[in-house]
Amino acid sequence: MNTYGRIFRVHVFGESHGERVGVLLDGVPAGIPLSVDDFRADLQRRKPGASGTTPRKESDEPVLRSGIFQGKTTGAPLLIEFLNENIRSKDYAHLQEHPRPGHADFTARHKYGGFADYRGGGHFSGRLTLALVAAGVVAKKICNPIHIQAQLITAGGNPNIEEAVAKAIHDHDSIGGVVACSAQGLPIGLGEPFFDSLESMISHAIFAIPAIKGIEFGSGFQAAAMRGSEHNDALIAADGTTASNYAGGINGGISNGNELHFRAAVKPTSSIGKTQESFQFAQQSVQPLEVAGRHDVCIALRVPVVVEAVTALVLADALLIAQQRSPIHHEKN
Amino acid sequence: MNTYGRIFRVHVFGESHGERVGVLLDGVPAGIPLSVDDFRADLQRRKPGASGTTPRKESDEPVLRSGIFQGKTTGAPLLIEFLNENIRSKDYAHLQEHPRPGHADFTARHKYGGFADYRGGGHFSGRLTLALVAAGVVAKKICNPIHIQAQLITAGGNPNIEEAVAKAIHDHDSIGGVVACSAQGLPIGLGEPFFDSLESMISHAIFAIPAIKGIEFGSGFQAAAMRGSEHNDALIAADGTTASNYAGGINGGISNGNELHFRAAVKPTSSIGKTQESFQFAQQSVQPLEVAGRHDVCIALRVPVVVEAVTALVLADALLIAQQRSPIHHEKN
Amino acid sequence: MNTYGRIFRVHVFGESHGERVGVLLDGVPAGIPLSVDDFRADLQRRKPGASGTTPRKESDEPVLRSGIFQGKTTGAPLLIEFLNENIRSKDYAHLQEHPRPGHADFTARHKYGGFADYRGGGHFSGRLTLALVAAGVVAKKICNPIHIQAQLITAGGNPNIEEAVAKAIHDHDSIGGVVACSAQGLPIGLGEPFFDSLESMISHAIFAIPAIKGIEFGSGFQAAAMRGSEHNDALIAADGTTASNYAGGINGGISNGNELHFRAAVKPTSSIGKTQESFQFAQQSVQPLEVAGRHDVCIALRVPVVVEAVTALVLADALLIAQQRSPIHHEKN
Amino acid sequence: MNTYGRIFRVHVFGESHGERVGVLLDGVPAGIPLSVDDFRADLQRRKPGASGTTPRKESDEPVLRSGIFQGKTTGAPLLIEFLNENIRSKDYAHLQEHPRPGHADFTARHKYGGFADYRGGGHFSGRLTLALVAAGVVAKKICNPIHIQAQLITAGGNPNIEEAVAKAIHDHDSIGGVVACSAQGLPIGLGEPFFDSLESMISHAIFAIPAIKGIEFGSGFQAAAMRGSEHNDALIAADGTTASNYAGGINGGISNGNELHFRAAVKPTSSIGKTQESFQFAQQSVQPLEVAGRHDVCIALRVPVVVEAVTALVLADALLIAQQRSPIHHEKN
Repeated sequence: MNTYGRIFRVHVFGESHGERVGVLLDGVPAGIPLSVDDFRADLQRRKPGASGTTPRKESDEPVLRSGIFQGKTTGAPLLIEFLNENIRSKDYAHLQEHPRPGHADFTARHKYGGFADYRGGGHFSGRLTLALVAAGVVAKKICNPIHIQAQLITAGGNPNIEEAVAKAIHDHDSIGGVVACSAQGLPIGLGEPFFDSLESMISHAIFAIPAIKGIEFGSGFQAAAMRGSEHNDALIAADGTTASNYAGGINGGISNGNELHFRAAVKPTSSIGKTQESFQFAQQSVQPLEVAGRHDVCIALRVPVVVEAVTALVLADALLIAQQRSPIHHEKN
Repeated sequence: MNTYGRIFRVHVFGESHGERVGVLLDGVPAGIPLSVDDFRADLQRRKPGASGTTPRKESDEPVLRSGIFQGKTTGAPLLIEFLNENIRSKDYAHLQEHPRPGHADFTARHKYGGFADYRGGGHFSGRLTLALVAAGVVAKKICNPIHIQAQLITAGGNPNIEEAVAKAIHDHDSIGGVVACSAQGLPIGLGEPFFDSLESMISHAIFAIPAIKGIEFGSGFQAAAMRGSEHNDALIAADGTTASNYAGGINGGISNGNELHFRAAVKPTSSIGKTQESFQFAQQSVQPLEVAGRHDVCIALRVPVVVEAVTALVLADALLIAQQRSPIHHEKN
Repeated sequence: MNTYGRIFRVHVFGESHGERVGVLLDGVPAGIPLSVDDFRADLQRRKPGASGTTPRKESDEPVLRSGIFQGKTTGAPLLIEFLNENIRSKDYAHLQEHPRPGHADFTARHKYGGFADYRGGGHFSGRLTLALVAAGVVAKKICNPIHIQAQLITAGGNPNIEEAVAKAIHDHDSIGGVVACSAQGLPIGLGEPFFDSLESMISHAIFAIPAIKGIEFGSGFQAAAMRGSEHNDALIAADGTTASNYAGGINGGISNGNELHFRAAVKPTSSIGKTQESFQFAQQSVQPLEVAGRHDVCIALRVPVVVEAVTALVLADALLIAQQRSPIHHEKN
Repeated sequence: MNTYGRIFRVHVFGESHGERVGVLLDGVPAGIPLSVDDFRADLQRRKPGASGTTPRKESDEPVLRSGIFQGKTTGAPLLIEFLNENIRSKDYAHLQEHPRPGHADFTARHKYGGFADYRGGGHFSGRLTLALVAAGVVAKKICNPIHIQAQLITAGGNPNIEEAVAKAIHDHDSIGGVVACSAQGLPIGLGEPFFDSLESMISHAIFAIPAIKGIEFGSGFQAAAMRGSEHNDALIAADGTTASNYAGGINGGISNGNELHFRAAVKPTSSIGKTQESFQFAQQSVQPLEVAGRHDVCIALRVPVVVEAVTALVLADALLIAQQRSPIHHEKN
């Protein structure tokens, strides 16, 4: 299912080396001012360009195809598309029989019986995060004035990010990283007990981002080594303010009005310059594999804005749902 | 939403000190032999009793109310209920105005306008995990022959679990822990790209368990410090076997036929013997708070079977969905 | 799927001659006063007793098992159960091999591989409408002050209902009928274009009632014989009032503020006193069949309150959804 | 919600006088051969051209944007788009303040706060049925070898369709009609008890088509005037064959293997050549209204292929779901 959301619904589509990628948004409230300019800042943050990012060049110009009229959303489905311009299909033809380690080549081949578009990962490509970022731009408007901010805090295991990237480039290798995300201004009450806990929904969306290996809220894995007396956040005001924030802004699956805070682990890019080994189906044996194509050395550099985007998708949907879950005061039933 | 699943759907209900807790399962295939005896082993693993667990005693006897006939599931909704027998409502009356740190008392009060059942956490109570375990018993039958196994690997930050628990008891405090879960025998192809990635669905369900603070698959957070050349699992056989398993059994959101592996962090129990501080609404000031009730010192001791259960829910649903996503071979369209 | 709704969700369960039937309601707003007394009037309207209804006697006493505290809904899942007291399992044993015409015996047997509870129709029984009526009582409170009213307008093809029933009783036969339903007080804006049109959702729910064969809104099938100049309802006031109401209160799938109006056709009860013929599986041939059991001569007599109930389910969900689809006015985005 | 389906999901988008209309299909099985040629026959049946249809001329050429590779579906989301070429925005500018009777102008204006695209009905336009027909082409392939066939059986209340249309043209008026649809080759077992009964799902989808006022299955409204002894279809063979088919191929909400049969009523086109009256918001009074634009005299002429299409959507989804609801035979649980 390429869909997220109950009220504000996001459907992604497209392939890395197909004609286009995009997103169809349904349940967008009417009357939101929206133009292609609104997308530029976030799309720019996702773009390659910095040292350690792919040399593939795309204009990444969003086109609004439906659901918009006279500069505002109409309440009808909003279709946003991006053309793929810098396609090199030939780079990938041999991979159909020789799956790249760490990629979805093998699982996609099996799941879709050999019919999947294998070029550059096809539908599984990180290029689809372009659609996520575009959806996030709309979602952020719905979330307004909630402010969501994500950044890369370590790469290759240490906070000196540029240095770690430079070393990986030199070694023709790749590195991972950790992205921290926070959101201020959440109302109390987003999320629901059990299966739609705010952590459930955020983690669901975060793991839709390729290369994510873990997520932790507030104290996270450190909580496992803490004591209750230390970990419990004392409530110190009627508005829900707590003295500490080990909870990461969530109690019982529901936002408590403090800052939402979580971290996500990004694995090292699977495509690397070094020669690897993988099973070759035509020859029925393990063979050396060179992954040509164009790839990021540290994909984590481009992930923060994607993390912000999917967090916004979750919060936008939760906000719209929460509006009508407030108690009903029946005078005379 | 107290619901999980698209084809195999799980709906939990009940309160800690209400009349009962239970689960309604819809989409259960017909013909599965099922009796109350099938539940005993897993329910026993969830029961308190060991040192460090709550003194609340409940028989936890499942009653099958519908969807079963002549010892087998009928395909109709299966209702499983448990009576609450050991209820002490008085312990909690004062908490309505004095929320316990770390619990959902404050968020529930706010979200439900003061109408939530506050006794022992009400619907937010860990007692609801009884319903999850019961659902898991049915799900495991659907998953058969997939074998799911979870265990506590650290408590209070170290692997000497009994010792850590004893020390916490002595200190009238609580500790957290880490639960590791694995599953063997998954077919290749469970999960879908992006929003229904296997990680998305498992994390969604795992964060439905109270007290979970983080989840990581395969290499997890360690991946962020690794290099691609090290992290990439080399495919070494036509059946999908890889030389290492940093992926945790998933590529591109889809099971690759290797062992599924993840870990979840459990926070220290929020209820502790020590006196804490919290805002008192009637007095509009921070006041000392004694959390009487009955509570676990290390709830993580009882979490592994719950982790197995919700993992089984996810895999059962994914299995049922995957059956019809296999490619269609049209002879003459 | 025994579930209806996106925000206000209804899950029915149970069997005709099983232990109980009931409904689990999720997404119920908190703070709604609710007691068993609230159910009596609607349950009474569904009860047999009048001439032409089944002699099966049940107390139909609702029990609220969860989601209620101090007389009000809590926002947590609300479980309502009814015990089956007047069970006669033996009446149905032979039907497993000899399906009753007009019933689900054959389709259930096939779909569930012989594992379905065949006693009195099992899960397919009209007894499940008890759960629908109970859900409707809660839904009507959410819909307040919308007023929904349904009544039987013809039986056996004519408006003289008592006479038609008496004649069918005399003939050991059964008759159908037409139920008309209207609702006043709908806000403008319920429903959505295309797949969640108000007609889509209401018809979806109405056809969940056993024995319904057709539904028509406003002018209905008569529209097919009308001209546009006659059928178009002229808008005559700013509040949406129209001079006529052939639309039945809906334009473009969305409520227009006028009275909602539709009719549903109910087939004659499938169980009749006369001897019928049906294929006998053990003998592999068509054999005479006597349908003993206890049955209604005109089930349509008891359907109006069920029609009201499922209409309320739809309107309650649509109301909760519509609240957040109102346009957003962004001052300074 | 512009979405239908649980496993095979259909999302429509676009506006009558916007840039394009289309459909995003998710959950399409991989390996289905698909080309633009496959769409021609059905699109042609929907096209205007015959006497009584709109003079608006569109090439209606489908473009497959994603989810297709080397002539076959890949299992990834399939985007199908149609450009709008023959746009006349000016025709509609004044309607914003003067809603057309029978159309969604007033409800859309209210629901979306004046932000809806009002040109030619915007997103509410019958032009969106182009997307439904395209989705139906793919769905029919999934349904193969089920054969679905719909046709107009009456127009303006009588079977002499051409004559009725000619008379309506002469009178500058419009007429409705009745469409009958049948499907052969359904397996036994599609649909589920209660809320996902086959009638529930089909009616849900049929009422997504603009202008539909009623639906009836098998005997339909005639059933209300029949007796059980007459209406009950006698089962005469082990494969489910019945002597008559008043059930329309469905018992208990589940397909019984006989022909599926239903009829839908289509209202007369709301746009007519005659002068009408409607409330004018700027003047706050009822004023005469001329509906210029281009319109069909009998939209029912073009509806049969749309009815087939949405029926195919329902059956495709039900087929994919039914595959895994078959009973499980556990050897040694």
